[in-house]
Amino acid sequence: MPPSSMIEGVLRRITAQGRSLIGQSRRNADLIAECKTIVSTAGQASGLARARDVLDQYAAANDDRKLAFLTGLATQFGPDAEALGACIDSYLSGHSPAGMRDLHQVSEPGGVEVIRRLNRAPGATADLLSMRTDVLRLKRDNAELEALDRDFRHLFGSWFNLGFLEMRRIDWSVPAEILEKFITYEAVHEFRGWEDLRRRVGAPDRRLYAFFHPSMPAEPLIFVQVALTRDIPRAIAPILAEDRATLPPQEANTAVFYSITNCQEGLRGIAFGSFLIKQVVEQLRFELEGLERFVTLSPVPGLRAWAEDPANADGLLAPRHVAAIAALDTNWAGEGLPEEARSPALSEIAAIYLTRATRSEGGARDPVAHFHLGNGARLEAINPGADTGRRGWARSWGVMVNYLYDFASIERNHEAYANDGAVIASSAIRRLGRPRKERG
Amino acid sequence: MPPSSMIEGVLRRITAQGRSLIGQSRRNADLIAECKTIVSTAGQASGLARARDVLDQYAAANDDRKLAFLTGLATQFGPDAEALGACIDSYLSGHSPAGMRDLHQVSEPGGVEVIRRLNRAPGATADLLSMRTDVLRLKRDNAELEALDRDFRHLFGSWFNLGFLEMRRIDWSVPAEILEKFITYEAVHEFRGWEDLRRRVGAPDRRLYAFFHPSMPAEPLIFVQVALTRDIPRAIAPILAEDRATLPPQEANTAVFYSITNCQEGLRGIAFGSFLIKQVVEQLRFELEGLERFVTLSPVPGLRAWAEDPANADGLLAPRHVAAIAALDTNWAGEGLPEEARSPALSEIAAIYLTRATRSEGGARDPVAHFHLGNGARLEAINPGADTGRRGWARSWGVMVNYLYDFASIERNHEAYANDGAVIASSAIRRLGRPRKERG
Amino acid sequence: MPPSSMIEGVLRRITAQGRSLIGQSRRNADLIAECKTIVSTAGQASGLARARDVLDQYAAANDDRKLAFLTGLATQFGPDAEALGACIDSYLSGHSPAGMRDLHQVSEPGGVEVIRRLNRAPGATADLLSMRTDVLRLKRDNAELEALDRDFRHLFGSWFNLGFLEMRRIDWSVPAEILEKFITYEAVHEFRGWEDLRRRVGAPDRRLYAFFHPSMPAEPLIFVQVALTRDIPRAIAPILAEDRATLPPQEANTAVFYSITNCQEGLRGIAFGSFLIKQVVEQLRFELEGLERFVTLSPVPGLRAWAEDPANADGLLAPRHVAAIAALDTNWAGEGLPEEARSPALSEIAAIYLTRATRSEGGARDPVAHFHLGNGARLEAINPGADTGRRGWARSWGVMVNYLYDFASIERNHEAYANDGAVIASSAIRRLGRPRKERG
Amino acid sequence: MPPSSMIEGVLRRITAQGRSLIGQSRRNADLIAECKTIVSTAGQASGLARARDVLDQYAAANDDRKLAFLTGLATQFGPDAEALGACIDSYLSGHSPAGMRDLHQVSEPGGVEVIRRLNRAPGATADLLSMRTDVLRLKRDNAELEALDRDFRHLFGSWFNLGFLEMRRIDWSVPAEILEKFITYEAVHEFRGWEDLRRRVGAPDRRLYAFFHPSMPAEPLIFVQVALTRDIPRAIAPILAEDRATLPPQEANTAVFYSITNCQEGLRGIAFGSFLIKQVVEQLRFELEGLERFVTLSPVPGLRAWAEDPANADGLLAPRHVAAIAALDTNWAGEGLPEEARSPALSEIAAIYLTRATRSEGGARDPVAHFHLGNGARLEAINPGADTGRRGWARSWGVMVNYLYDFASIERNHEAYANDGAVIASSAIRRLGRPRKERG
Repeated sequence: MPPSSMIEGVLRRITAQGRSLIGQSRRNADLIAECKTIVSTAGQASGLARARDVLDQYAAANDDRKLAFLTGLATQFGPDAEALGACIDSYLSGHSPAGMRDLHQVSEPGGVEVIRRLNRAPGATADLLSMRTDVLRLKRDNAELEALDRDFRHLFGSWFNLGFLEMRRIDWSVPAEILEKFITYEAVHEFRGWEDLRRRVGAPDRRLYAFFHPSMPAEPLIFVQVALTRDIPRAIAPILAEDRATLPPQEANTAVFYSITNCQEGLRGIAFGSFLIKQVVEQLRFELEGLERFVTLSPVPGLRAWAEDPANADGLLAPRHVAAIAALDTNWAGEGLPEEARSPALSEIAAIYLTRATRSEGGARDPVAHFHLGNGARLEAINPGADTGRRGWARSWGVMVNYLYDFASIERNHEAYANDGAVIASSAIRRLGRPRKERG
Repeated sequence: MPPSSMIEGVLRRITAQGRSLIGQSRRNADLIAECKTIVSTAGQASGLARARDVLDQYAAANDDRKLAFLTGLATQFGPDAEALGACIDSYLSGHSPAGMRDLHQVSEPGGVEVIRRLNRAPGATADLLSMRTDVLRLKRDNAELEALDRDFRHLFGSWFNLGFLEMRRIDWSVPAEILEKFITYEAVHEFRGWEDLRRRVGAPDRRLYAFFHPSMPAEPLIFVQVALTRDIPRAIAPILAEDRATLPPQEANTAVFYSITNCQEGLRGIAFGSFLIKQVVEQLRFELEGLERFVTLSPVPGLRAWAEDPANADGLLAPRHVAAIAALDTNWAGEGLPEEARSPALSEIAAIYLTRATRSEGGARDPVAHFHLGNGARLEAINPGADTGRRGWARSWGVMVNYLYDFASIERNHEAYANDGAVIASSAIRRLGRPRKERG
Repeated sequence: MPPSSMIEGVLRRITAQGRSLIGQSRRNADLIAECKTIVSTAGQASGLARARDVLDQYAAANDDRKLAFLTGLATQFGPDAEALGACIDSYLSGHSPAGMRDLHQVSEPGGVEVIRRLNRAPGATADLLSMRTDVLRLKRDNAELEALDRDFRHLFGSWFNLGFLEMRRIDWSVPAEILEKFITYEAVHEFRGWEDLRRRVGAPDRRLYAFFHPSMPAEPLIFVQVALTRDIPRAIAPILAEDRATLPPQEANTAVFYSITNCQEGLRGIAFGSFLIKQVVEQLRFELEGLERFVTLSPVPGLRAWAEDPANADGLLAPRHVAAIAALDTNWAGEGLPEEARSPALSEIAAIYLTRATRSEGGARDPVAHFHLGNGARLEAINPGADTGRRGWARSWGVMVNYLYDFASIERNHEAYANDGAVIASSAIRRLGRPRKERG
Repeated sequence: MPPSSMIEGVLRRITAQGRSLIGQSRRNADLIAECKTIVSTAGQASGLARARDVLDQYAAANDDRKLAFLTGLATQFGPDAEALGACIDSYLSGHSPAGMRDLHQVSEPGGVEVIRRLNRAPGATADLLSMRTDVLRLKRDNAELEALDRDFRHLFGSWFNLGFLEMRRIDWSVPAEILEKFITYEAVHEFRGWEDLRRRVGAPDRRLYAFFHPSMPAEPLIFVQVALTRDIPRAIAPILAEDRATLPPQEANTAVFYSITNCQEGLRGIAFGSFLIKQVVEQLRFELEGLERFVTLSPVPGLRAWAEDPANADGLLAPRHVAAIAALDTNWAGEGLPEEARSPALSEIAAIYLTRATRSEGGARDPVAHFHLGNGARLEAINPGADTGRRGWARSWGVMVNYLYDFASIERNHEAYANDGAVIASSAIRRLGRPRKERG
């Protein structure tokens, strides 16, 4: 019996034994009351059994019951306002480090300790990620869950510390039960079944790397797909083609990150992507000495929504840009792309959007641009007509972008972007996106 | 290349690459300044390199330099008193949950974030455990480290959540590099070399179970040693004897926990022992249906120090007890034990100590008793003359104790002890420890 | 680096190094001359390189070149007729055991030693299995290869001794690169893609077990598929249905072997099936105490060819059987089966075929019957209309059969069949197959 | 349950089940009769049980019973003299390849098939190796076992084909149950306990590589120990010293094979050593680019026995050599070595022995020299005073030798030695060993 299944079996038996102590699980048990018992008593078998029971009942609940539980978790577990008041008084009177730590400790939201205790049950971590996924969904209409979401994010940030992650290369020697997760999670360029997966993990010029957390060894957290090529690609179809010729990896000079997928909605706000890209770059540089550059082939998901909204474009787009947009077929559904998808105006609009449209808190408005620029990459090229799919048309009229990870400048770029919101772009793009006088 | 070594290799290369960015490590770098840079910048390669460098320099430092670093870590990283003051004002004005969370967040000691960032470096977790071991040692003379110790304990408590631990059975098929850790760590009944280890992990009637954390797969956190026997043992020597006959496990009716060892001083205050014992009990019950009882054979480390101090004994010990103590050889160094080691008075003294001597915060004074009673075990038997070693004489005149883990009553016992400090003992021990009128 | 890839890498390097010794591989090298060099010299690096080269060139050769090589292998490597003559003389003069062994040794066909030497090259075993597959194909028109086939079979019988095989359960946790082999090899009831595979290895009431040889850890030799059911199944479709309800394994009372596949044509004549079935039975009995019987659901591949040939049926089939056969649609291609597929006459014909049609060397004429009866199974039930597929119609008008593995009688049945060709069948089948007077 | 333990468990259950079929094992069963049953019947469960039973009873038998069994195995299982006679007649009449193969098949000693059948039992291979070890021992006084030994060697040669072996590096991460085997088997320079083992497998400048057969994954077949050094070592003590300074492997220019050990007496005559050395050389060359040469530091086990026997020395040794020998202390038991151990005459005697003393069948008389010269190594240096141990004194007055594996000439050397018995030696040694006129 391997270690991991040993512990799982043992925990299940302890849980089962505890279950006999706590009696039949009542279908409609008050889950908040159960959690109060879990936190206040130290009995471990019964505590494990109660935790497992709460998680199971929660998972089976409808949204009303879930919302009631989450609201209770957010509000009914302290801190004790009186104790907190006393701590504040004490701190204000002395400003001692100990007083400050007491204050920190007493002000901890009680739900955090509940979540820690629930996590002791076998398999609990995945359940808690699901629970936070619910919080993210339900908080839109239930503002009181906003605070609970902060609690989850903070705790998960500690548990999923980068130091605990494992990077694994995923290839065709990986168990099917793990491989199928990638089929499920891939959102950017979907896998069309197992044969497609095989091409993208098994071909000598394709790679897939993922981060795992040791407590969930069969659940990827994030993964990136890489194509090894002879040049910077300008379109996605040749990369995904079924019948393409494969390139011996030793002959590749370019590594292309053509898809990055976060798998765990429940870990939103806890960033692994930058770390993963940098580890993959290091791994590939070590293995393949011929690689000269690392680029992405990325979507521009916010382009069209931005450009079609007159409020955004105002002052940035010129009348001929607006005219060009008007000429584009809104719901194109033909084969390939219409001719206008390659008009120079479209490249200019994309350049303006990427280099000059900003988000309120600063930085590039486009989320993918924000991610790569924040990592220190440079906006390298704009590729109209790069994505002939329907989704690409709906989001960006088929435009895709290359970001370049150049390790000589990556830290400098990162600092410039982080501190000043400076979008580092190639001169060609800077020229395309430059404000210009319209003639006539 | 297995996943774990893959990540380690990659991290080392990123670290090395970052090292070239941050320049030569200066032998006498200001480690606190380095940590400030780590926290304030987002560059990952340089951040990893700096973190690794800080940990390496710290590890090589002398106590003066260590103390300076730790003191800086405790005091120079906030929180920002002004921001905290503003948060307090805001909270006091509204008592909102968000305000309370802001308060909690702002009051977080800045050292905690430093430790989180340091942990991203390859192999950092073990270094951070060592760092806390230093804190525990140095805080005795440096009270300002007390607060830092709390920070470590809190953070480690989150990282080493019971849900993340792995229990493994350690037997003779385990790699030597892991086995030797047990030789190093075992403190209760030392291993006399590899042959002794082999007897205690490889014999069919002996077991050793340990907890591991997935980020330190070769470092046990805690382990317990078990003997499978036909009866409750009354002495330790037969269990450790080189030439004893082994018992087919199917014929055993008793599982004896004869040694429990915490390996990581740096995890002091984060309790795994109770959880481990309960998991081992479940595992053994599953495997061996003949087992009828689970007991310990435990030392009584505080007995003699307590009994020889007149201040303690006053009112609890009778004159004949005091006389019996006086008759015991203080520095016995002969073969075996002197005859007085088996005097009935000694059993009474031990019973009085274990059932009636309390610690200031309540509960049994003896630390081993406190641990097992706190787990819900029952004080089952007192065994004078059980430990013929010199250490046993120095600590308890050779007395050892059996605690019984009886699963029908364990939760009830635990509650009674936790809430009322009630020491659950067998009737024989209760009789021995009962206050009694001295005649004459 | 795991042991297996270590050795492979080392061997490849030795081979490469040897290659530089033996010079460029000539496209049209005389492979027989190469083999003579391999056998006659002891240089190991060069020997490995030559062996690898011979195997590679052979694999790339067309049938003419292959045939030339195989013929050379069969005829040009001795034994030395003169030496053999001398040995015979010597043996005849003394009949000593040593003389007999000399005779045995000298008479060994020289190709056997060539094959042994070729097997030292990295990955050679799989190549040699392919080579024998060629022999099996080519010997049909080239009788001189018959002897070489005997040599291969004898050597492989030694290498693939049952004591060296590993049985593994194949489930969804197995690497994809191994799982896909089963899709490739399954011949009885083809896998319709990965989802179908998943149902047949991943469902709780389905099992797949395979034998592997340690020198080819990713290549199954033979596998069997098992369904756990409540009753003896009478048709195959419900077992393979996509949308069937799964049965908790604990509730199953019957284990059904519904497909047995030999994967390695190159191992023809070396029997693993009986051993595999018996190991699977033991494994399942150990795991699932509720199992009461072990049966197959098997095709009757030779039924129709036998029954439609008047020469066979003569004397065994009655006129009404012949009439029933004439009424059956030869090339049925409709949905499901025609009504006549369930006529009682068809069951009788099948019973007569299975219990009374014999092969020239004795034993049941049907190959599947011969296999299971030879293992000691009992012919239990005949199921007309059990296989609605086109192949089933072509081979047996849709008839399938259950063989029962009853461990109380299996050795006795086996002996009776092996010694006397006695077909052990249920009384119902005996009745159906009984010779009977036709009325009128 | 991992595959290997799965199969073992299953086999044990089948065996147990078969045991109930064959009834109680009789303490004094006629093992030869049992083997006859095993060979003549096809029942698999009973066959396995019988095989296991024969192996167990054999292992427990005394030498008389073992000898009776082995003699029976050698003589009572055919071949059938009549059938063989018929085959011979048939072959002589036609000399057809098929006739020759029939002859080969019919002349196979019957014991070979018995051994193949016995090997199907769980764990049988190791038992059969032990059985041959007995044969090797007993055949000295029982010449009729000589033939059986040939049968074993031939069969084992097929099973242990080099293509099936796995090379593994043994370091401190290896399970203790495997590591301890090396302590048991090492004969050349014994391990003085676990700490010594640790130094010799765990130090960065020490290596240990072994061959394993997949059917005995915890049993090494042969292993070699390597020291990485700056120069060719002239003595063994510095290599084995407890307190030596370790060398970073990147700084080593020499790899020294200082011990080669065959572990399985039962595989005598089946040579793995040359193959292992060459694989280790390749592995080290791949890992460590700084290595410039590969040498041994080897004993000269036959030197003294040869030199002290006047019959041998006659004509090769000069009078002053004989005088030098007479001056050497026969039973030296002091510290270190006597002064005469470094006399120039001793080097000459060793050179004469190694280059000019031959075995009757040709080649160097010294077995270690024969092994390395046969591999193509060159006799490089003679080191008087290299081995200060008592065994070294007894065998070679402390002389040790370096053989050089030079890959540019290894195949040529090998051929020269194999074909002509030419001992390739450095010019210095050739000079030392040259026949010379004695003055006066």
